[in-house]
Amino acid sequence: MIDITGAAAERIAWAARSMPVLERVAKRLAEQGSLAGLRVGVSLVLEPKTANLALALRDAGAEVVVACNASSTDQQVAEALRGLGLRVFADSSADEAEDLRLAREFLETGLDILIDDGASVTRLAHREYPELVAKMIGATEETTSGVRPLRVMHDDGALKLPVIAVNDAASKYLFDNLYGTSQSCVMAFLDLTNLQLAGRTVAVVGYGWVGTGVARDAAAMGARVVVSEVDPVKALRALHDGYEVTGLGQAAPRAEVVFACTGLAGVVTESHVEALPEGAFLCTAGGGAFEMPMDYLHGLGTRRGVRAAVDAYTTRSGRTVHVLSDGDCVNCADAEGNPIEVMDLSLSLQALAVERLAAEGEDWAPGVYELPADIDREVARIRLEAAGGSLEPLTDAQREAVRAW
Amino acid sequence: MIDITGAAAERIAWAARSMPVLERVAKRLAEQGSLAGLRVGVSLVLEPKTANLALALRDAGAEVVVACNASSTDQQVAEALRGLGLRVFADSSADEAEDLRLAREFLETGLDILIDDGASVTRLAHREYPELVAKMIGATEETTSGVRPLRVMHDDGALKLPVIAVNDAASKYLFDNLYGTSQSCVMAFLDLTNLQLAGRTVAVVGYGWVGTGVARDAAAMGARVVVSEVDPVKALRALHDGYEVTGLGQAAPRAEVVFACTGLAGVVTESHVEALPEGAFLCTAGGGAFEMPMDYLHGLGTRRGVRAAVDAYTTRSGRTVHVLSDGDCVNCADAEGNPIEVMDLSLSLQALAVERLAAEGEDWAPGVYELPADIDREVARIRLEAAGGSLEPLTDAQREAVRAW
Amino acid sequence: MIDITGAAAERIAWAARSMPVLERVAKRLAEQGSLAGLRVGVSLVLEPKTANLALALRDAGAEVVVACNASSTDQQVAEALRGLGLRVFADSSADEAEDLRLAREFLETGLDILIDDGASVTRLAHREYPELVAKMIGATEETTSGVRPLRVMHDDGALKLPVIAVNDAASKYLFDNLYGTSQSCVMAFLDLTNLQLAGRTVAVVGYGWVGTGVARDAAAMGARVVVSEVDPVKALRALHDGYEVTGLGQAAPRAEVVFACTGLAGVVTESHVEALPEGAFLCTAGGGAFEMPMDYLHGLGTRRGVRAAVDAYTTRSGRTVHVLSDGDCVNCADAEGNPIEVMDLSLSLQALAVERLAAEGEDWAPGVYELPADIDREVARIRLEAAGGSLEPLTDAQREAVRAW
Amino acid sequence: MIDITGAAAERIAWAARSMPVLERVAKRLAEQGSLAGLRVGVSLVLEPKTANLALALRDAGAEVVVACNASSTDQQVAEALRGLGLRVFADSSADEAEDLRLAREFLETGLDILIDDGASVTRLAHREYPELVAKMIGATEETTSGVRPLRVMHDDGALKLPVIAVNDAASKYLFDNLYGTSQSCVMAFLDLTNLQLAGRTVAVVGYGWVGTGVARDAAAMGARVVVSEVDPVKALRALHDGYEVTGLGQAAPRAEVVFACTGLAGVVTESHVEALPEGAFLCTAGGGAFEMPMDYLHGLGTRRGVRAAVDAYTTRSGRTVHVLSDGDCVNCADAEGNPIEVMDLSLSLQALAVERLAAEGEDWAPGVYELPADIDREVARIRLEAAGGSLEPLTDAQREAVRAW
Repeated sequence: MIDITGAAAERIAWAARSMPVLERVAKRLAEQGSLAGLRVGVSLVLEPKTANLALALRDAGAEVVVACNASSTDQQVAEALRGLGLRVFADSSADEAEDLRLAREFLETGLDILIDDGASVTRLAHREYPELVAKMIGATEETTSGVRPLRVMHDDGALKLPVIAVNDAASKYLFDNLYGTSQSCVMAFLDLTNLQLAGRTVAVVGYGWVGTGVARDAAAMGARVVVSEVDPVKALRALHDGYEVTGLGQAAPRAEVVFACTGLAGVVTESHVEALPEGAFLCTAGGGAFEMPMDYLHGLGTRRGVRAAVDAYTTRSGRTVHVLSDGDCVNCADAEGNPIEVMDLSLSLQALAVERLAAEGEDWAPGVYELPADIDREVARIRLEAAGGSLEPLTDAQREAVRAW
Repeated sequence: MIDITGAAAERIAWAARSMPVLERVAKRLAEQGSLAGLRVGVSLVLEPKTANLALALRDAGAEVVVACNASSTDQQVAEALRGLGLRVFADSSADEAEDLRLAREFLETGLDILIDDGASVTRLAHREYPELVAKMIGATEETTSGVRPLRVMHDDGALKLPVIAVNDAASKYLFDNLYGTSQSCVMAFLDLTNLQLAGRTVAVVGYGWVGTGVARDAAAMGARVVVSEVDPVKALRALHDGYEVTGLGQAAPRAEVVFACTGLAGVVTESHVEALPEGAFLCTAGGGAFEMPMDYLHGLGTRRGVRAAVDAYTTRSGRTVHVLSDGDCVNCADAEGNPIEVMDLSLSLQALAVERLAAEGEDWAPGVYELPADIDREVARIRLEAAGGSLEPLTDAQREAVRAW
Repeated sequence: MIDITGAAAERIAWAARSMPVLERVAKRLAEQGSLAGLRVGVSLVLEPKTANLALALRDAGAEVVVACNASSTDQQVAEALRGLGLRVFADSSADEAEDLRLAREFLETGLDILIDDGASVTRLAHREYPELVAKMIGATEETTSGVRPLRVMHDDGALKLPVIAVNDAASKYLFDNLYGTSQSCVMAFLDLTNLQLAGRTVAVVGYGWVGTGVARDAAAMGARVVVSEVDPVKALRALHDGYEVTGLGQAAPRAEVVFACTGLAGVVTESHVEALPEGAFLCTAGGGAFEMPMDYLHGLGTRRGVRAAVDAYTTRSGRTVHVLSDGDCVNCADAEGNPIEVMDLSLSLQALAVERLAAEGEDWAPGVYELPADIDREVARIRLEAAGGSLEPLTDAQREAVRAW
Repeated sequence: MIDITGAAAERIAWAARSMPVLERVAKRLAEQGSLAGLRVGVSLVLEPKTANLALALRDAGAEVVVACNASSTDQQVAEALRGLGLRVFADSSADEAEDLRLAREFLETGLDILIDDGASVTRLAHREYPELVAKMIGATEETTSGVRPLRVMHDDGALKLPVIAVNDAASKYLFDNLYGTSQSCVMAFLDLTNLQLAGRTVAVVGYGWVGTGVARDAAAMGARVVVSEVDPVKALRALHDGYEVTGLGQAAPRAEVVFACTGLAGVVTESHVEALPEGAFLCTAGGGAFEMPMDYLHGLGTRRGVRAAVDAYTTRSGRTVHVLSDGDCVNCADAEGNPIEVMDLSLSLQALAVERLAAEGEDWAPGVYELPADIDREVARIRLEAAGGSLEPLTDAQREAVRAW
């Protein structure tokens, strides 16, 4: 698939080795030329794993254009894709204005289908390029935080495209959140600090699938976990999983490490931070810096870097608090993001969602669509087999049993 | 709540001690007299926990009638309820014909609302008593295996009642299946055999919530777990949880213990049994004997009891296979069923579902209804607080963040 | 091996099925007639598993006599052994005086080798029958609580026999304590109460191997575990395993369940009990009622049975406290003790220790001896293979590497 | 404690923040001037954590000299210590001959007490500097692989010094091996590969404390674990912990990742490597490259770097095998070694062992000594308290109970 050399090529090839699902999907799409004649925009974190998706789409016949903002761009990979003839609107040294200009140029190429992350390009297109939106077949969305505003847009009558919520596929969100994000964020904490979690009290804020995984992995590393939740059923699940369940306000004075796992803004507040014990750590898993009171922290005027990706602050209460990755999602900001196998699942779903849009999307009304269940099941099945697992076929007798009363 | 003495009263009181949610719900219903003037039929496993539900409904003003088939009837509890003035249509020594007669008499009392388990009485009523069905306000259903045929009936246009699928409430199925049934079935295996699972290969058939819990608990006891599944997403989840995933046909020759956790008929077949290693065990968790090839086993003519609730068979291949509880769900048949706290959740949901039907059910069209979400959340909240947990309230800022795009 | 019929025979045969190590050892001893002409006394809990040891020793040529005090005697098994021609000095209805008389008669048969449990018969023999002790070859001891006083006796110059501390063999104490006792005690709690541990705070007193296992199993069932220890290294291990570590005095007000796992007297005190929350449970794992303040509890005058093996007390602070098995080790008192496979290990070690004493014991000076390491390894090896495991052989190169400097 | 500035100082200070035990010990030693007038040689991996030990010894009054071979030298830290006035015999760019010269110069300073790692300097001293050995008070040894040859030397009559086996202290080997090394090696695998262990078959070779921890952590990350052992008791423990137990020869064809955890040479052989599945990984945890068949691998002539610290080889069977860190212990070679808290334990033991040697060592005969138990307990106690845990004091009644028979 890759016809360049150098470090970026090696890293792209490394990822490809552990993406058996995308390999299989790409092969079929290439044989069928499923995307011939279409311009597909890829607006995802630009790194070796997503590069493989871009190349798979190209091999399927599409003209692929790529965009990414500066903070998520791996410049080496951007250059490699340019070397392979793709148009890439990304520059890791861009400032905010340049990022916006690049996103506009990306849209102005005239996309048929857009793969978006966080709905940022989709929203920009609706705001500034309604005439281009009108010509698009559709889009796909990778994340929870992108699907949420798209649904609000649709409720408000503002969404003019069919968008497949790839994020909501079981073989995306479940594995990405419960296994991928949680593992890689807990690992990033250990790696960035050279500390252990054993013997520490860890507050996990939010017991969705990311929080469930973070709690499980932290406990497996020997932490005592306290969970904060707003939803009673999730909170009760945390209790049954063996954790103390209480509000972060109650937990903060003991919380030596806080993992924010909600994807919601303002979850950790100034008063929480002021209550933390000496030397505590703040770390975002899966979401972004908006979960943390970064304005308050920056405003303290006491920030100092003490280690790569670790800042120390002196709070008003006179204690030291450490913030990882300046509050950003720690596995993406200062590690390599999700494990390759997890991205293999979601990027394969993306490729198949694009294929479905290419085949049928022109007939779809604007709206947020679930990924068709057959795609979800197909991706899970290939992944299972690649890992050496196999399914038990349903017998005819069982099929009948399901339909009797 | 209890005004009788003796062993049954003690056992009913023992259960009541660990049912804080039902206690709180019952107190409010009694104060409001919410069920005054209604005849409510309780057709659940008749034992100390459900007796507390029957008494709570009585205290809320209902005339409560109780029914249960022989194999699920605790005679001591049946007598105790009679002693308290309830009509009870159940006899632990009844044969099949007598059970049917009792169920008919139960229906002929003229129920306003029915609490059913497995939809057996609901189906009987639709077959034989359409005129009584026409007068009923509605019913509730406790189990997965009851909800499934009710939905088929509704699709076929045959369902004439609104039925609340209490089973499908998150605070029912999740805790019942993932924590209650799994724990009590794994414990029942250990208790009935005096063996350990450590060092044994255990096949878990079905990776729904019961299977997930059984696999987790068996692994915690030191078993090596192999999972069989028909659904690729569930199978992939099992793989990520650290288990081998393969068909039961592949796993059988190593499967020293088989837990059937599907709720579907015919899951374990004759050929699976013939492939099992010497001395293997068959055990049903959550479902019923229909999951096992009992006709084939009984037909072997080699059955012999070797321990309470454990039969040995010599198979055609000349090996010994042990069957627990004659294939029935092992925790209900030969242990005390779910832990009390788990039943506290589902029986409290039942009480609140009956209250809702009493208040609004006459206006509902026939169909299978989800339990209203406010009931689900309320029950989870009370249970959490009773266990000393507390919820984090959502701030106004967070409420707004959820609605922005 | 068994030539009787009836329920006891079935239960003895059931145990035999899962004792592959003893089966293999017994076969060899029988072929070699290793114990011909010796009188061997077995003073262990008298139940189906130990019955298999007695029969194995008989088949090896010994005249086997059996003794047991009333509370540990399974009368059905006692009769079965008598039916097979063994002399059995045990009666489940005996009072304390009769128990003492039976133990004396047992000793007066003139034992060559004694298998003892808790060193009770060994101590009686030293106190009352020095002339018989002088004629004995030696003894073996099964438990931690027996080995401790034997070592004290030896330090005091009072021990007149070689005694093999079977208890201290790795394939005894490790598996018995870490896997057997812990599993069966946690299960007994669940079984006797019909409750769950999920969501409860459990205090584990003592973090030796029993406490380590109880903490692990309780946590696996969803409990939040607090550990109390007197030894800083064990306490630090508990901390690294993810538990809160604090004194029981600190933990008592939150401790919904207390497991005493120390084997030492007076570990749980009156003031601990008075501090427990309403409805708390006291439970001994592995040791005996001496760990609990039973005199204080009985003296309250408020004891009432509320369920089989569960007593409730009203404490001076006006709260209800539940005690399981009147403070005795809960798995032995009200369940079936250790899993069969665990007893297979220790009873096989006993058989081999007796063989070693028969062959060499007359040349050994009085003292407490470790079980020879070759026996320990051999038993572990057979058990491993019976479970389908296999060892990696050490290569010659590795053997040399171990000796180089 | 630190009076320099710059990156090294920051890193040393970062470590110091999480070394509460050493801080407490250092404070007392400094107040007492316990090491005044002594020259103490520190020959450990030269990085921020050990730098804190060197500074603590200096503050206690010793003249501290430091040595380290090139591959274990952090040059930045070496410079920092020089800047603080210590003599440092280490250069990260040294070749083998220069390393030897530096070690000789280090010894020629005339040490009173030596802290050694792997016994390499101790052995060099005995071979080349017997007259200096004669003047030394004693030494301490940090590792298992150093204690083993020292015991052989002592058995051979060649050891001329008292050496305290700090490695064998419970608060060293247990926490270092079971929690520190295992965690950091599993993390290093995840970090160096960007893969997940979930769904992979992992072979753990050796089930000592390192292997036990690696197996536990890999299983917690979702791996299916197969254990190879030569010792039957350890193998049986692995079986009870839920793992398959078999020889590496049997496991190799399925082993997608191999962790060597034995500390013995030649454990993974050419034939094992040739049997591995396509794309497998070899990784050493705790030991060194001697566990792997590096000569064979290098001799294949197919080595190519595919990622930092990851080499791919094409084996004779035509498959790709990946080796991490060229076979060296992966956490030390390409991560930051043990977590800081774990090194806090062992370096505090070192400081206290040096104090004890300074006070009493002149009276000790040559030999390998256990660390005095009071030191071991004291370090564990301080660490526990620093983590917020507390000990239950033994009552007088309990003390008496321990001595009764």
